[in-house]
Amino acid sequence: MDNVTQKKNAVVLLSGGVDSTTTMAIARSQGYNLYALSFRYGQKNTMEIESAKKIAMALGAKEHLILDIDLRAIGGSALTDKIPVPKGRSNEDISKGIPITYVPARNTIFLSFALAMAETRGASDIFIGVNAIDFSGYPDCRPEYIQAFENMANLATKAGTEGKITIKIRMPLIRMTKAEIIQKGCELGVDYGLTMSCYDPMPDGSPCGMCDSCLIRAKGFKKAGIHDPAIEKN
Amino acid sequence: MDNVTQKKNAVVLLSGGVDSTTTMAIARSQGYNLYALSFRYGQKNTMEIESAKKIAMALGAKEHLILDIDLRAIGGSALTDKIPVPKGRSNEDISKGIPITYVPARNTIFLSFALAMAETRGASDIFIGVNAIDFSGYPDCRPEYIQAFENMANLATKAGTEGKITIKIRMPLIRMTKAEIIQKGCELGVDYGLTMSCYDPMPDGSPCGMCDSCLIRAKGFKKAGIHDPAIEKN
Repeated sequence: MDNVTQKKNAVVLLSGGVDSTTTMAIARSQGYNLYALSFRYGQKNTMEIESAKKIAMALGAKEHLILDIDLRAIGGSALTDKIPVPKGRSNEDISKGIPITYVPARNTIFLSFALAMAETRGASDIFIGVNAIDFSGYPDCRPEYIQAFENMANLATKAGTEGKITIKIRMPLIRMTKAEIIQKGCELGVDYGLTMSCYDPMPDGSPCGMCDSCLIRAKGFKKAGIHDPAIEKN
Repeated sequence: MDNVTQKKNAVVLLSGGVDSTTTMAIARSQGYNLYALSFRYGQKNTMEIESAKKIAMALGAKEHLILDIDLRAIGGSALTDKIPVPKGRSNEDISKGIPITYVPARNTIFLSFALAMAETRGASDIFIGVNAIDFSGYPDCRPEYIQAFENMANLATKAGTEGKITIKIRMPLIRMTKAEIIQKGCELGVDYGLTMSCYDPMPDGSPCGMCDSCLIRAKGFKKAGIHDPAIEKN
């Protein structure tokens, strides 16, 4: 049952938010050894790395690698550049088009590092918490993008090319609503009090409550009929 | 003729070696504004960044972005890990399999950052000096890999998704021999004395002359019937 040597290894992209944390709990429930990967990429919310550390520990990751890649030099996003994060947008506005919080090629960059980590840790599976239902409209959260990345990944690597490993990009949340994601995580015992979703926290580190990410989170907890323990804390 | 406003923008991956330098000269000859991108990724040869700086200046780049991404934490390669770089290998050995100098997912990581830079600089073209003839057998230097990356790139980005820009990954050297590459560069006025190819230079910064990259370079200059000006300097 608990034969560690038979477990497969998985790299899990962990931002410290609801989606990546639930994804990691799902990977754990499927019996993988967990190799968590997070980034300090110049994001305005630097608190999320502290959340990610606690989550990786709580979920028993074998390794938690935190890489520094400064995307501020690339710019072009409200999350990394001197552009204000939009606040208090309506549901209609949130679901319209690609917002200014989009970080150019961010998931491609993150998945590329995950691919390198997978190759060196003998992992065939990469988990990413992308979601195409209750999401911010980012192009690199759609299933057709993930599928194209997977095709590329198997041509890119020594492991893929030599046929020893077929790289699979797992996206267990892709067709779930935010409420379903939260319910699933609660079933798996996730402590959402550890998670941090805000794009642009207050000076004291608490979530702003008004950015798209805070609003989508609040709506998800409400629909799930669950009180958000991260709000309770503040 | 020299109407700068009509020029298209291109991002060029520039390592400071023969191939990337020739690629950049080709992009310039095609009339692009050049946005050069280099990486300090924990490579043993830190001199190549100095070469890249001189080359970007010599070829008139509008910008030369140098990013720090430490791939040593990922490991798995003789170029970034505590693994010796193979020296003095025969042509037969060099052309057999994927060598230990392969850096897991390196071109995927580099191209991902190039994609982000292309999106923010309004560039539709990314130039990379991959070559599938006189090369080290890396999977991420083959045309089928580059094609798969291009497909993914157009699904990944705001620019690609909104149909404003079709991202093209240009690989002008892909079917050229090393000798042909050098001849082409000389026609375009490249000063190969600025370039640096060595995987593992001597303590004084001069090329070792014995790694696969030095050996492929030497063979290329010999076949092209051109004296290597970088050797002349030492």
